[in-house]
Amino acid sequence: MTASLDRIRVVMCATSHPGNIGAAARAMHTMGVSRLVLVKPRLFPHADASARASGATAVLDAVRVVDSLDAALAGCAFSIGYSARPREFAGAVLPARAAAAEAMRHAVQGEREVALVFGGEMSGLSNDELARCQAVATIATNPQYSSLNVAAAVQLACYELRVAAHGDRVWTAPRFPAASSDEIARLFAHAEKTLAAMSFLDPARPRRLLPRLRRLFARAGLEKEEVNILRGILARVDELLARDA
Amino acid sequence: MTASLDRIRVVMCATSHPGNIGAAARAMHTMGVSRLVLVKPRLFPHADASARASGATAVLDAVRVVDSLDAALAGCAFSIGYSARPREFAGAVLPARAAAAEAMRHAVQGEREVALVFGGEMSGLSNDELARCQAVATIATNPQYSSLNVAAAVQLACYELRVAAHGDRVWTAPRFPAASSDEIARLFAHAEKTLAAMSFLDPARPRRLLPRLRRLFARAGLEKEEVNILRGILARVDELLARDA
Repeated sequence: MTASLDRIRVVMCATSHPGNIGAAARAMHTMGVSRLVLVKPRLFPHADASARASGATAVLDAVRVVDSLDAALAGCAFSIGYSARPREFAGAVLPARAAAAEAMRHAVQGEREVALVFGGEMSGLSNDELARCQAVATIATNPQYSSLNVAAAVQLACYELRVAAHGDRVWTAPRFPAASSDEIARLFAHAEKTLAAMSFLDPARPRRLLPRLRRLFARAGLEKEEVNILRGILARVDELLARDA
Repeated sequence: MTASLDRIRVVMCATSHPGNIGAAARAMHTMGVSRLVLVKPRLFPHADASARASGATAVLDAVRVVDSLDAALAGCAFSIGYSARPREFAGAVLPARAAAAEAMRHAVQGEREVALVFGGEMSGLSNDELARCQAVATIATNPQYSSLNVAAAVQLACYELRVAAHGDRVWTAPRFPAASSDEIARLFAHAEKTLAAMSFLDPARPRRLLPRLRRLFARAGLEKEEVNILRGILARVDELLARDA
């Protein structure tokens, strides 16, 4: 599936700020997408692009600069335009997540590339640019302020692609063995006896004490080692009570 | 459900670059999250923060600056630390998507806030900072280059929250009425006759022509209006053939 992210091409049209090109390169690289094509960028190469790219210089070094969207899309089997602006569109209009699944479907089956197309900072993709795309992707935003930075949009789009391609589990902390139900049953039997011996629990009128404790520890998901610690504490209380008696 | 995004608090610890604070404010605002708390920022307020915030000045104006993570978390019922670095952790380690669902679950049911906690640019959250969180969220990245910009991480986290809270459908293009199956059947009957009259189709040896055309138009999902246009073209061909005859 990694090879298929290699078939994703990000196309940025008429980018005004070179810093956004660098930030987009970094965003792509963090998600394992490396092909960037710029259509008529206002300023590129530029120091701001390099600075914001941080460690993603390999993406910037391999950038292709072209002078039309058609040239940028040459060799692509499928292209998706990202747009926040509702309008008529002949193809599918998909949430970014569904668009990522669709992009990966094309990237996996095809020999050719899939393009993700982003408009300029001021007004996004024009109708003319969008008409060259087979699908539109929309990114969920606050309807009162949907002004996503273009590099942030590239970040979100590439993130959805990565999750579609590789899933989203990253790392897990080491888990310790869970206590078995009989170990837990013995713990509560012990606790009941000790709490009664402490006169904290009146066996004749137990109220809701034990059920509440059971609920607490069930929620925590007791580990073997933790049962041992809790029984150690109870045993120590037992000893103290025996000494006082 | 909108009210519940109001209960989300973003906490940025020890941020070095004020530009990242501004970009994070904009990222939050695009997703409808507005409460930002800074723990010991190196420089704030700062012109770079205001510049990168773009239209999200309301978030910056309402920022709280505190001098410890404990102070930042006061009043929170649940806090999630975002970290790319695997290590021991007592609570749940969740992909960002599952973490967002968990955050919204707490935000919806509780009176108190839920915190999303982000570390500094250099090394992220320390063990000490992470120990103050009930869960860790991990964002899917390229294992060869997982260096997400901190504002980009805030963007992705808040996006997942927004999708968890409100879904991700944004807009759809107007759909036109689909052709009925009898309209399509009549279209193909017409096409068959006309293509035969054009001597393009040999009725005795039709090969795969009609099935291929059916497949193409089935994939496109024909609309009523499109059937009319195609039948208009066929009718015009019929006229031309009649004239030649």
